Amino acid sequence: MDYLAEKFARLGTDNAPGQEGLQKAEDLPMIGDKLEGPAVDFSHGDVNAHQPIPGSLETFVKHYCVDGTYQAYTEYRGKGAIREYLAEKLAEYSGAPVDPKTEIILTPGTQGALFLAMGSLVGRGDKVAIVEPDYFDNRKLVEFFEGEMVPIHMNWKDAAPHTSGIDLKELEEAFKNGVKLFLYSNPNNPTGAVFSKEEVSEIARLAKKYDVAILADELYSRQILEKDFTYTHMRALPEKPDKLITIMGPSKTESLSGFRLGVGYGTPEIITRMEKLQAVVSLRCAGYNQAAFYRWFSEPDGWMEKRIADHRQIRDDILAVINSCPGCWARPTEGGSYIFMQLPKLKVDIFQFTKLCRAQASVTVTPGTEFGKQYGDFIRMNFSQDHDKAVDAVKRICKMVDIYRA
Amino acid sequence: MDYLAEKFARLGTDNAPGQEGLQKAEDLPMIGDKLEGPAVDFSHGDVNAHQPIPGSLETFVKHYCVDGTYQAYTEYRGKGAIREYLAEKLAEYSGAPVDPKTEIILTPGTQGALFLAMGSLVGRGDKVAIVEPDYFDNRKLVEFFEGEMVPIHMNWKDAAPHTSGIDLKELEEAFKNGVKLFLYSNPNNPTGAVFSKEEVSEIARLAKKYDVAILADELYSRQILEKDFTYTHMRALPEKPDKLITIMGPSKTESLSGFRLGVGYGTPEIITRMEKLQAVVSLRCAGYNQAAFYRWFSEPDGWMEKRIADHRQIRDDILAVINSCPGCWARPTEGGSYIFMQLPKLKVDIFQFTKLCRAQASVTVTPGTEFGKQYGDFIRMNFSQDHDKAVDAVKRICKMVDIYRA
Repeated sequence: MDYLAEKFARLGTDNAPGQEGLQKAEDLPMIGDKLEGPAVDFSHGDVNAHQPIPGSLETFVKHYCVDGTYQAYTEYRGKGAIREYLAEKLAEYSGAPVDPKTEIILTPGTQGALFLAMGSLVGRGDKVAIVEPDYFDNRKLVEFFEGEMVPIHMNWKDAAPHTSGIDLKELEEAFKNGVKLFLYSNPNNPTGAVFSKEEVSEIARLAKKYDVAILADELYSRQILEKDFTYTHMRALPEKPDKLITIMGPSKTESLSGFRLGVGYGTPEIITRMEKLQAVVSLRCAGYNQAAFYRWFSEPDGWMEKRIADHRQIRDDILAVINSCPGCWARPTEGGSYIFMQLPKLKVDIFQFTKLCRAQASVTVTPGTEFGKQYGDFIRMNFSQDHDKAVDAVKRICKMVDIYRA
Repeated sequence: MDYLAEKFARLGTDNAPGQEGLQKAEDLPMIGDKLEGPAVDFSHGDVNAHQPIPGSLETFVKHYCVDGTYQAYTEYRGKGAIREYLAEKLAEYSGAPVDPKTEIILTPGTQGALFLAMGSLVGRGDKVAIVEPDYFDNRKLVEFFEGEMVPIHMNWKDAAPHTSGIDLKELEEAFKNGVKLFLYSNPNNPTGAVFSKEEVSEIARLAKKYDVAILADELYSRQILEKDFTYTHMRALPEKPDKLITIMGPSKTESLSGFRLGVGYGTPEIITRMEKLQAVVSLRCAGYNQAAFYRWFSEPDGWMEKRIADHRQIRDDILAVINSCPGCWARPTEGGSYIFMQLPKLKVDIFQFTKLCRAQASVTVTPGTEFGKQYGDFIRMNFSQDHDKAVDAVKRICKMVDIYRA
C-alpha cells in the first residue's frame, strides 16, 4: 500500500456519526424480536425538535434578494459587515476585544474552522497534544497533517463536578517535550464535562511558558446546563497565551447546522494563514449563508434560556433511565448535549452493538471508540432530540443492554 | 522561517480575485485624473446582472421548511435523493453512466471538489502535471500537498480555433517521467480556449498508457459560445483512463456561487477518499444549500440559450474594444466568461497597473501572474457583467493602457 493509501486507510469514516446509512448490510447476531418505537438518531441533534433561531431563514432570504452579488462574493475571510457584527458580539461574549479586520474568519461550520486552524498550525512531524476522550476528528486531523499525536488523559469519571479531570502534570510533561499545539473542547465532547477556571488558567499558563499554541473548541459553550456554573474563556484570562484560536459556531445549541456556519477568532497571524488555506479549500463560507450569522447572539428574549432548560430536562430524564439500568453509567452532562454512556460487559463488541441498536431498536448511537480506542464500552448520544422520543429510545437501549449482557 | 511558515508564504492570496479590498493602501504613481464611470469588478461574475437559475431560492426555502433536519444533516457525500437526481442529469450530460451511490460527491463549490480530489490524489513528492496558463489555485494546491509541479505548455495564442494548443509531446514526456496526476480545465481558465476532441482523446490515451490519474475541471463546459463547436467529455470516450474525476458546479454559468455548490464524479475509489477528506474538512456541502442543486440541469426552456447568447454579445463587444487598442490582444473566448487580455509594454509593472485600474478607473482585474509567473503582461477579466458597464469599463482599461504605455 502506498503512502497516500495508508493515510486514507487511517481516515476511516465508516463509524462516524451520520454515516450509518452507508454501512454495508451484514449478518448480525440478533437475539429476539425488534423493539418497537419511533426511530431516533442520536448521532446528531434534531433540528425539527429544536428549531433554528427564529428569523434565520428570513435573514438569509433578505440578503439573497437585497444584496445579491455582494452577498454571494465575499472576501475569503467573510463579509466585512458580518465580521464587524460578530467581532462585537464575540468580544462581549468572551470578555476580550476582537478586531474584525484581523482577528476573525468565517468558515463552513466549526469543522471548517477546526480544519483550517489545524492546517495552519500542524506541520509534518509536529507534536500535537490531544485530550482523551475528545472530538473524534481531532485525531484524524493530526493524522491528515502528519503530526505526531500526544494523548493527554482526562479523568472525567472521577473528577469533581465542574472540573474536567485533565491530567495537568501529563500536559506539562508533554509541553516540555516539544508539543507545538494543544487542542481541547470545552465543554468536552463526548463527556459534557466543563473545565474549571483553575484548569483553563493552568493550561494557559503552561502554554505561555512553553510557547505552545492553543486551539480552544468552545462550540458548546453557550449551553451550560448547571445554573451556578461560570464558564471560563481562555482568551479573557490574564495568562492568555500568545498563540490562541477559539472556534465556535451556531450549529449546535442554535440548530443552524444546515447552513454550515463557524468562526475562528484570535491571533492575527494564524487567522491570516487560515484565510490562505480557505482560499484553496472552498474559497469562503457560503456567501448567502453568512447572512444567517446576524441572528446568532441576537436571539429573542428568553429563547436561549428556554433552549437550555429544555435540554436540562431531557438530560435529567435520560440520566434517570441510565441509572436504573444495572452496569450502565454516565457522568451528568454539564455543558452541551452529549452524554457518554458506559455499558456493562456484553456478548457482542461495540460495533455489533451499535449496529444491533440500529437494526433491532431503531436507535442510532456512536461507538465510544470514535473518541479514543480505549472507549470500547461506551456509546455517545446527542440528546438534542424530541424529549419523549429520546427518553423512550434510551429505554430501548437499556433493553438492548439486558438482551446482550454477557 | 520554519517549514510551515515557508509553505504559507507560498500560498499568497494578496492578488487573488476578490481579495483586492484587503490590499494595503500604498502610494501609486498615478498620472492624470480619475477616469469616471461605474465601478466594475471583473474578478468574478455579477449575479445581479446575470441572475441565479429561477426557482433556486424557492427550492432552498421549500426544503428548509419541509425536510428540516433531514436536509440539514446529510451523508458527508451529500443527500442520497440529490445524488440520484444529479447522477441521472450528469450521465445524460456527459454521455456516460454515473452511479449515484459510489460515483458522485457533493462539495462546497467546485473549489471544494478540486481540493478534495487533489488531496485524495497528491502525496508528498508526487509529480503533478499542470497546464500553463490555468486556474491559479491548481499550482497552490500542488504546493499545499507538497507535490512537485511539472508545467505543460499550452500554445493557445497560435493554436487553431477549438484547439487548446496543449503540447502533447511535452505531456507524454512528463507522463513517461513519472507524473501521477494531470489536471486541466476545459474550457481553459483564463484563456477561454476549448480543447478539441483529438486533444482530449490523446490526453486520455496517454493517461491510460502511463497509468496517470486525470482531474478534468469542466466548470464552464455548459457555456460554449461558438454554435458549431462540440464539447468533448473525457469520461465518455472509449479511451477513458482508469482513474478519472470530473468536477463542475453551478457557480458560474448558472450564477449560484453564493450557495457554494459543486460536484466531483468518477472513479469510486477516489470518491471514497474525497468523502473521507470532506468529513474532516467541513463535514458536507451545506445541507440546506444542497436543495438548490434541483434547479441545476432543470432550467426553464430557453434560459440557458439566452444566457449563452448574452455572454456571446458581451464577448464580441469587449473584443472589438480590445482590438481597437494598439498593442492589446486577446484570443476570442470559446467557452466560459473569461478573457485573457495581453497588454503592450507599460511604464508600471502588472501589480501597479491593476491597482491603478482600481484606484483611477474603478475597474478590478486580475494580474496574469496568478495563472503563471510568465504572464506579467496579461490581465484576466470575467465578463459575466452588465453589458454596457462591462464595455465601458474595458474602454477605460484601454485608456489606462494609453496613459501608462512605455
